[in-house]
Amino acid sequence: MTYSQKSKESNPIGVFDSRIGGLTVVKALMDLLPHENIVYFGDTARVPYGSKSPEVIREYASEDTRLLLGYDVKLIVIACNTVSAVALDVVENISRIPVVGMILPGAEAAVRSSKKKRIGVIGTSATIRSDAYTRAIQSLENSASVFKAACPLFVPLAEEGLTRHKATQLIAKEYLFPLTLNKIDTLVLGCTHYPLLKETIDLVTNHSLTLIDSGEAAARTVLKMLDDACLRNPSALKPNVTFLVSDIPYRFSEVGEPFLGRKLGLVKKVTPIHVR
Amino acid sequence: MTYSQKSKESNPIGVFDSRIGGLTVVKALMDLLPHENIVYFGDTARVPYGSKSPEVIREYASEDTRLLLGYDVKLIVIACNTVSAVALDVVENISRIPVVGMILPGAEAAVRSSKKKRIGVIGTSATIRSDAYTRAIQSLENSASVFKAACPLFVPLAEEGLTRHKATQLIAKEYLFPLTLNKIDTLVLGCTHYPLLKETIDLVTNHSLTLIDSGEAAARTVLKMLDDACLRNPSALKPNVTFLVSDIPYRFSEVGEPFLGRKLGLVKKVTPIHVR
Repeated sequence: MTYSQKSKESNPIGVFDSRIGGLTVVKALMDLLPHENIVYFGDTARVPYGSKSPEVIREYASEDTRLLLGYDVKLIVIACNTVSAVALDVVENISRIPVVGMILPGAEAAVRSSKKKRIGVIGTSATIRSDAYTRAIQSLENSASVFKAACPLFVPLAEEGLTRHKATQLIAKEYLFPLTLNKIDTLVLGCTHYPLLKETIDLVTNHSLTLIDSGEAAARTVLKMLDDACLRNPSALKPNVTFLVSDIPYRFSEVGEPFLGRKLGLVKKVTPIHVR
Repeated sequence: MTYSQKSKESNPIGVFDSRIGGLTVVKALMDLLPHENIVYFGDTARVPYGSKSPEVIREYASEDTRLLLGYDVKLIVIACNTVSAVALDVVENISRIPVVGMILPGAEAAVRSSKKKRIGVIGTSATIRSDAYTRAIQSLENSASVFKAACPLFVPLAEEGLTRHKATQLIAKEYLFPLTLNKIDTLVLGCTHYPLLKETIDLVTNHSLTLIDSGEAAARTVLKMLDDACLRNPSALKPNVTFLVSDIPYRFSEVGEPFLGRKLGLVKKVTPIHVR
């Protein structure tokens, strides 16, 4: 993984996801790296990736990567745990620039945080099934015990804005109770939608766990990589943050804004190779 | 809408949907027409259609139709309310065989059932936004009052098997309470996933409403159309029911079987034009 000779400090960071979850990662990047230009691509025409087979996800990820490379990005963030879990190597092989996935930064933050080395991981069915977090955590700390749970309803509940609803609390309790029985002290929110449910997750686990936001962890990795390579954008001007999607669905900006934590502004429709 | 000269009684009925919701329609067809051959196509590589723009849905519907025509179907059922609402004309224009959507049969059944002519309609955001049920109901009975509500969480709740869960009851109450205030006596379940939530919907509305299953209504329309054209399959043999999908996701059969009400059997992967 070496920086291409052509990468320049002012080139944007490329970020992609299947839809809007990745906007929580863009939020973390904008908070931590307020002068970086960013190009975000949400593959809204083919969302969700999580319910598709690994082969299809890898094909989509390679097309998304090629699209971002067309914008001369200096680094790519795979702002989706599912894609990071099953297609990180695809993105790395195609691009000659650094790639940051969600899994390793989240795993590193969890291992640093957990005193008992008993770590819980929650995510979509595809992420949990892939076992990528367990492998990453145990490669960093082989004595760590990892307990995992898929929480498939968290994504639609977050998108519908029921982040603190009684129904969400009931569902969260059922998903998380078996994990707490295993005496974990740290829980990785292994899906970019889950930061919106942080308060509810904290509530139903009696404020007993350190919650790891994988997007925030990834943003810290991006900062370090850019610093190491002297590629931070030195400009103090307001950066360009560009939002690209493959389809503009109804209420896209309305649903997306709580994820980004600010107004989305202009969203442009583009067509990656082979979409449709 | 005339039958093609080539259509034969033993040719299959073609049914398509974006994934598994349409299996409740196949169930209704198999119950009502137990000797008909059926080809079902679930476009699992591009699911869900409901969150996409009408232009994209129309394009997908035309490709799905062409795929089914390749199987010499004698009639096409659009087993998805969203597609029926925004792309019925596309399917009708491409095929030279009869097409049954979900909207008109559901609207007819509701008008027949409602004494007060005060009818509620629930569906996905896309179906409700299209206003297709309101137009269909009022074209049949212009004095009818139609009250509608989008219930976007019902699909993931049904797919996760939380059909009678306390959380589902809480969410259903919130969705349906405003409708009951309008003194409706009939409620159209305007999404093929919703029959799985029938008991919960009946419970939270105090057993006060006649619930119209749009899939059952569509099956009755299919029976009538085949009878009118003398195209019922006369064979008393066990029919062929073929399940085609554009991707085979994890747990597809497991999630699909409650929708079909029986074992799914063999599921074959096919690629409609332009998928991927």
